Amino acid sequence: MTRTLIRELKENIEKEITIKGWVDVARLQGKMAFFDFRDRSGKIQGVVFGKPEVLKVAETLRQEWVVEVSGVVHSRPEKMVNTTVENGDIELEITKITVLAQAEPLPFDMSLEGYNLDLATELDHRALTLRHPKLQAIFKVQSVIIDSFREFMKKNDFFEFQAPSITPATAEGGAEVFQVNYFDKKAYLTQSPQLYKQIVMTAFERVFSVNKVFRAEPSATTRHITEIVSLDAEMGFIDSWLDVRDMSENTVRYILNEVAEKCSPEFKLLNTTLPTIIDKTPTYSLTEAQELIFQKSGRDVRGEKDLNPEDERTLCDIIKKETDSDFVYVYGYPTRQKPFYVFPNPEKPEFNEGVDLLCRGIEWLSGGRRINNYAQLCEHVKTWEMDPNSITMFLEAFKYGVPPEGGFAFGAERMTMQILGLKNIREATMFPRDMNRIDMLLSGAEKEV
Amino acid sequence: MTRTLIRELKENIEKEITIKGWVDVARLQGKMAFFDFRDRSGKIQGVVFGKPEVLKVAETLRQEWVVEVSGVVHSRPEKMVNTTVENGDIELEITKITVLAQAEPLPFDMSLEGYNLDLATELDHRALTLRHPKLQAIFKVQSVIIDSFREFMKKNDFFEFQAPSITPATAEGGAEVFQVNYFDKKAYLTQSPQLYKQIVMTAFERVFSVNKVFRAEPSATTRHITEIVSLDAEMGFIDSWLDVRDMSENTVRYILNEVAEKCSPEFKLLNTTLPTIIDKTPTYSLTEAQELIFQKSGRDVRGEKDLNPEDERTLCDIIKKETDSDFVYVYGYPTRQKPFYVFPNPEKPEFNEGVDLLCRGIEWLSGGRRINNYAQLCEHVKTWEMDPNSITMFLEAFKYGVPPEGGFAFGAERMTMQILGLKNIREATMFPRDMNRIDMLLSGAEKEV
Repeated sequence: MTRTLIRELKENIEKEITIKGWVDVARLQGKMAFFDFRDRSGKIQGVVFGKPEVLKVAETLRQEWVVEVSGVVHSRPEKMVNTTVENGDIELEITKITVLAQAEPLPFDMSLEGYNLDLATELDHRALTLRHPKLQAIFKVQSVIIDSFREFMKKNDFFEFQAPSITPATAEGGAEVFQVNYFDKKAYLTQSPQLYKQIVMTAFERVFSVNKVFRAEPSATTRHITEIVSLDAEMGFIDSWLDVRDMSENTVRYILNEVAEKCSPEFKLLNTTLPTIIDKTPTYSLTEAQELIFQKSGRDVRGEKDLNPEDERTLCDIIKKETDSDFVYVYGYPTRQKPFYVFPNPEKPEFNEGVDLLCRGIEWLSGGRRINNYAQLCEHVKTWEMDPNSITMFLEAFKYGVPPEGGFAFGAERMTMQILGLKNIREATMFPRDMNRIDMLLSGAEKEV
Repeated sequence: MTRTLIRELKENIEKEITIKGWVDVARLQGKMAFFDFRDRSGKIQGVVFGKPEVLKVAETLRQEWVVEVSGVVHSRPEKMVNTTVENGDIELEITKITVLAQAEPLPFDMSLEGYNLDLATELDHRALTLRHPKLQAIFKVQSVIIDSFREFMKKNDFFEFQAPSITPATAEGGAEVFQVNYFDKKAYLTQSPQLYKQIVMTAFERVFSVNKVFRAEPSATTRHITEIVSLDAEMGFIDSWLDVRDMSENTVRYILNEVAEKCSPEFKLLNTTLPTIIDKTPTYSLTEAQELIFQKSGRDVRGEKDLNPEDERTLCDIIKKETDSDFVYVYGYPTRQKPFYVFPNPEKPEFNEGVDLLCRGIEWLSGGRRINNYAQLCEHVKTWEMDPNSITMFLEAFKYGVPPEGGFAFGAERMTMQILGLKNIREATMFPRDMNRIDMLLSGAEKEV
């Protein structure tokens, strides 16, 4: 018999159908058996009553067994309707059960209410815990975030390209780079598609990529992992860095709207709410932000080269109170604090036109205007004491006519974590990698955050 | 003045607008100057006539300079219409030119007709050659291939997940794996998301991923690169391996249709045609395929453990002649020739239910049914002499009830190469990596295919 998905059952009242799925809950009551079955599309209650040969099979079923179940779909009598659960107004009268696969007893409580693992145990058993609806909800939201980014980019004429993961010894080199044994030579895992997206932008004008980046940060904090899904955009023909800010703001706004529209069951399940983005996101220069922190909190960080984590939290709190916005842009960082390609403010060249977006106390997104003039770029390469031979391809792109340009990037896991108010970025990463763990704890790893 | 894209000019006849783009061609004729300008949306001819102050700027312009050009859009008189080029029925009467960026003289001919670089030089100058319309066409087709895969998967309820790149020392380990120095430990770059997609399938039922895989093959052939975009799918609740074949066939059919619909300008430019997929793609067991090769070509490969490249070409030629299909499925390989997770045919356990799709003489796609029974999987792990501790997470997924399942995978670059009839997979890879090259030739690399 053809399989019917559980979400289609409501269209099959009083019809005999066959579903395939997992036993979510099994309850025996004398000569009756009650089940919750689940498939990828939903859950349904099934009942065995007055069919001894079916009951015989039903009695053997345990949680997570995989079954093919035939039965007749009934509307429940009004007083039996349960409006708090999915398909609470229908029920399956089971006529046949075939076991497709058995399961071992679960090692811990996987029920919606009873599930209560610490993160390390949850990760040790990722293969099983991924079946929990709350964990599935997180990754569904993440897939909507990534899809929405891609959609918005395409709506705005950005071309998607595949940025490479393996890179030669380039400007990116440094302590926080993973080295790969590349045949008998050395190569590195990319820390960012930055130089590649700028190269491809010079040919396609507006480009984006969804690719892995790798950070060998030897710190096991709640917001660092070593392998990240980076959402990157780069655009030519901007008038100023404000175009970059606006495009990034519209991107975030679009993503939040899509998540709100498509993920309300997930938000309900996870008991959380979206951050608030107001009509015009407050925007301050670093200097102004530091002044604001001083004025409102009394803490004097004026003249520091960057905002530290405490500054970021304070600034976000101030903005939230004053405007209700969970977001704030900060631009204009000391030029020498940022990479060589960031565009210096022509009127105040000691500050650049880099811009970050903070939300709920953490940086979400980083971007800005880049240098598009070849001579200026070469001058920066010299000032930053870089080897031009290590970025030959990048420099070549800028030899042959490049418009004023800029772009931005953000990490999918951090955005998922922040949108859902999760405490640890590992909760927002299906298979998180850090200095202590790749799937399982690495041998010699002692503890984990 | 607000920027108008070149593709919008036809809607602005007799209006004054401003475009921004590159000088594609510049020709001076006495007191007139003719230009082709291009932006991401198209090309347009512009003319300076009778405006001495504009002509003065126009005379300085060179190929690839970046400009902002204001002018009035005119319909061309009928006898001046050129139907062979884009926007051949309109023209821009230039009123103002502002130079946004200059360019150095090009190191080689980048015109549509004159471009004629060997592949090594093309790759050495990737940053510039990406501006050529033929190269852009290749990557536009590739982005449609990847998008269409994603679209078809989502239409069919597959959930997209992010497969990891860094893996522990697992079953995948072997000579063709890149090792990563992971802090003070060893890790590896993934060769395939196979085990992860099976794990995630046990939770989400139908899953797909678009992720990088890495192959340390020390061979510099025309069809091998070390970093590949892998399009992967895995589905539960199949009745047999035929469901996997059908889903993969429908996926390929969908991709070909989308490419046909969206990329006709690119196919025209590249002067190539799509492979033919007929209503039911011919499907043979390995044994039958070998028999067919023997019958039709006289070459006796019966009993060999696999098809070699010559067999693949011969088989595809035979099928093409007999059915017009460019595609053929081959299933049922010797069980011990394939990985431990492939499902053995219950009636003939020395052959498995793995299946490959060949097209135009080359393997496009590989897949099949997998073992879903935990005990059988453990038995295979033993027979294949693997360390079960190296795949703890994978095995755990199968302890707790997994439906009959299977899946398939194919490489985006090889598919692009084959769809476009390119000679070398590097042409279908924006930044190809092989044993000799990462962007530039690696030091010590002597030659390149």
